[in-house]
Amino acid sequence: MKLQLDRKNKTEHLYLEVYHYYKNLILEQKLPSGSKMPSLRKCSQELKLSRTTIENAYLQLAADGYIIAKAQSGYYVTDIAARHILPAREKPDKEPEYLYDFASSGVDRESFRFDLWRRYIKSALRQDDRLLSYGEPQGEWDLRCTLADYIREHRNILCSADDIVIGAGIQSLLHILCPLLKEKKNVSFPTPSFIQGSTIFEDYGFRITYRNKNSDVIYVSPAHMTKWGEIMPVSRRLELLHHAFSRGSLIIEDDFENEFVYLQKPTPSLFSLAGGKGVVYLGTFSRLLLPSIRISFMVLPPDLSALYRQKAAWYNQTASKAEQIALCQFIRDGHLASQTRRLKRLYAQKLKSLLSAVREIFGSDAPVQIGAAGTSLALTLQTPHNAASLIEKSKSEGLRLQFLKESEGEVTVILSCSSMPAEDFIPACRLLKELSQI
Amino acid sequence: MKLQLDRKNKTEHLYLEVYHYYKNLILEQKLPSGSKMPSLRKCSQELKLSRTTIENAYLQLAADGYIIAKAQSGYYVTDIAARHILPAREKPDKEPEYLYDFASSGVDRESFRFDLWRRYIKSALRQDDRLLSYGEPQGEWDLRCTLADYIREHRNILCSADDIVIGAGIQSLLHILCPLLKEKKNVSFPTPSFIQGSTIFEDYGFRITYRNKNSDVIYVSPAHMTKWGEIMPVSRRLELLHHAFSRGSLIIEDDFENEFVYLQKPTPSLFSLAGGKGVVYLGTFSRLLLPSIRISFMVLPPDLSALYRQKAAWYNQTASKAEQIALCQFIRDGHLASQTRRLKRLYAQKLKSLLSAVREIFGSDAPVQIGAAGTSLALTLQTPHNAASLIEKSKSEGLRLQFLKESEGEVTVILSCSSMPAEDFIPACRLLKELSQI
Repeated sequence: MKLQLDRKNKTEHLYLEVYHYYKNLILEQKLPSGSKMPSLRKCSQELKLSRTTIENAYLQLAADGYIIAKAQSGYYVTDIAARHILPAREKPDKEPEYLYDFASSGVDRESFRFDLWRRYIKSALRQDDRLLSYGEPQGEWDLRCTLADYIREHRNILCSADDIVIGAGIQSLLHILCPLLKEKKNVSFPTPSFIQGSTIFEDYGFRITYRNKNSDVIYVSPAHMTKWGEIMPVSRRLELLHHAFSRGSLIIEDDFENEFVYLQKPTPSLFSLAGGKGVVYLGTFSRLLLPSIRISFMVLPPDLSALYRQKAAWYNQTASKAEQIALCQFIRDGHLASQTRRLKRLYAQKLKSLLSAVREIFGSDAPVQIGAAGTSLALTLQTPHNAASLIEKSKSEGLRLQFLKESEGEVTVILSCSSMPAEDFIPACRLLKELSQI
Repeated sequence: MKLQLDRKNKTEHLYLEVYHYYKNLILEQKLPSGSKMPSLRKCSQELKLSRTTIENAYLQLAADGYIIAKAQSGYYVTDIAARHILPAREKPDKEPEYLYDFASSGVDRESFRFDLWRRYIKSALRQDDRLLSYGEPQGEWDLRCTLADYIREHRNILCSADDIVIGAGIQSLLHILCPLLKEKKNVSFPTPSFIQGSTIFEDYGFRITYRNKNSDVIYVSPAHMTKWGEIMPVSRRLELLHHAFSRGSLIIEDDFENEFVYLQKPTPSLFSLAGGKGVVYLGTFSRLLLPSIRISFMVLPPDLSALYRQKAAWYNQTASKAEQIALCQFIRDGHLASQTRRLKRLYAQKLKSLLSAVREIFGSDAPVQIGAAGTSLALTLQTPHNAASLIEKSKSEGLRLQFLKESEGEVTVILSCSSMPAEDFIPACRLLKELSQI
């Protein structure tokens, strides 16, 4: 490798050519770590360049950490090549592969029709003109109209597309919402478990409280009150609303997993019960389509919607435009509705067979909690182990568990059926029983 | 349409059936706005349901705004159907179609190989297993490795994939960065024009200043210092760094449009000049690929990288997983590099012909400012109009302009060549000249 100088180049840039020449020699370890660089004098003679040009190149190389100056001795190559390129290659702290995973947040591989989704993405990617420009900050207009229709039909939520904001996940929406709530000081969450939510509020200086109905902002997931899928009955929803209104608190309704309410019709949303005032409605498609599709939306009540519109233009849209276009047509063609029905059947089915697997292995009187919604049940184990050691032990045996609570001689764990294939329920429960006993 | 009651249903839910029955009649306007609802007594007799069930249904309908109670008279249908469904249909304040758009932030339709990108998205969507789970909060590992290689090769930036955070656009990254800068109180921007950036800092309580090198945080775009593409010379970059370090200020380097530095080799990034300390590097692909592809990344210096890792798990990834997978392979196969070369040629070419169009129409001594980078030039017009009226007048004639500054008898506008086809330059300039004179 010989340095070919472009002599027409302004001297200001000759130093960069020298710089790149040595940079590459060092990164390719042709100048190995520790080797001495040619002296400025020698180098400038060889390359027929001014000493200053060489010096500038060396200074730049030193600034970038390729070489280091040693007093009265000259410049030496650092171990930068080794440090920066090679180690980064193997992926750090990779999750171990589990034999049975009761704690996965993934979805069942049977649950999603990839062929169908690929078709919609493909046709979205054919809309060249739309993709050549930035998306609408609030989310694509046609998707917002389609969502307005969808939630009116399925959740009795009446709103115009103007009140819907689309974002790449709930957090992106909270980043828009929190700054609109400047006068609110504290927020209440049902449990400490939804850290993705509380983190954002903390970042904006909110004080986080739990189950505090006197809070300025009340964050609730009425269809997912407990990990085992208890839902909030209408009576309690009305109570909550009346109390919140009397105090002027804002309710944030995260309708997470409302689609998975099996045992009864979905309960009216807080948003609809409130007639669209004093409640922000949050919906997401992560559980319904694919966790990897980052499209969520919120419905703002009139006052917040007006506030938002003043700033809307300054928040770029975060969700992929192509995926928004695809999702819009996907919904219009009725696939979201049928996908919901399919998932509802699938998970109700799986939860039922998980329950019977639990009864078969742990006995018909096994202390199980199961709700009207969701994809999980809570099982209390009689065990000599404490939770920590049980979960560690299981992990080493390839069984992943989600801890709920423990007491003397008892550990309660959450078993999720969402991503585990049904045929694994029996062996997984059997393994769990062994581990809890020995 | 007759109400079919599912009598097996728990009474608790019969009221919902009545509710849906009337909801649909109202939305389909079979019960038109203003019409009176049957009395509770009459309705309960007809449906053979308890008065309470009917009353619950009516109360719910009222809560949702479908009907309204009038004292001593009964319930009446509101105009909700009209209000909520029909108006939302036509899209509000749609941008007019421009004949010539000198202010578009879009990209040239020749600039992007959709066929190619479609192929990469398609193969990404075949990785079912990966798409069934949530993405890595920090961004897909393989993409971060690929980016680390890419920016080392093209921007002399040495970092490990662990220091790279991916997000759906610069704002999503600032949402992660700002909370890491708790002790910093104020931030400086080069100009007030980058509102998308300053808004986020404001939302986190930062005080915004401009061109203030004594600020705690200094946000700069060295390759895009002015709208007409002036870049910051190495000497000034080194000054800035030394001053920032002496004061312990953090520099945020937004490398926006560095790829479009035509007239010379790209200047070393602040990040590399600083040896990776005290500088956060921001990169984006909106201008390079498609504005609608929402993938940006930041490189954190060691101290911030460590802080971030403590919270990383609580921030869900915002960028589409499929697009991350596609982009990773796209870069590995060398398409980003060639796309950059193609764009650089294309825009340099277009800027040159825009310049000659301006000289042809406005004379060879027309006061033009043009930088070493970017896709725009600044043109000062001698005109009797003030800026506002000139821009309005042009708009009504189908010519869109971006205002820069004005003084007595002069208006300076920015002409962007990025999305306008080259053959329009002459007619567009001719129209601009007419409008500025009459």
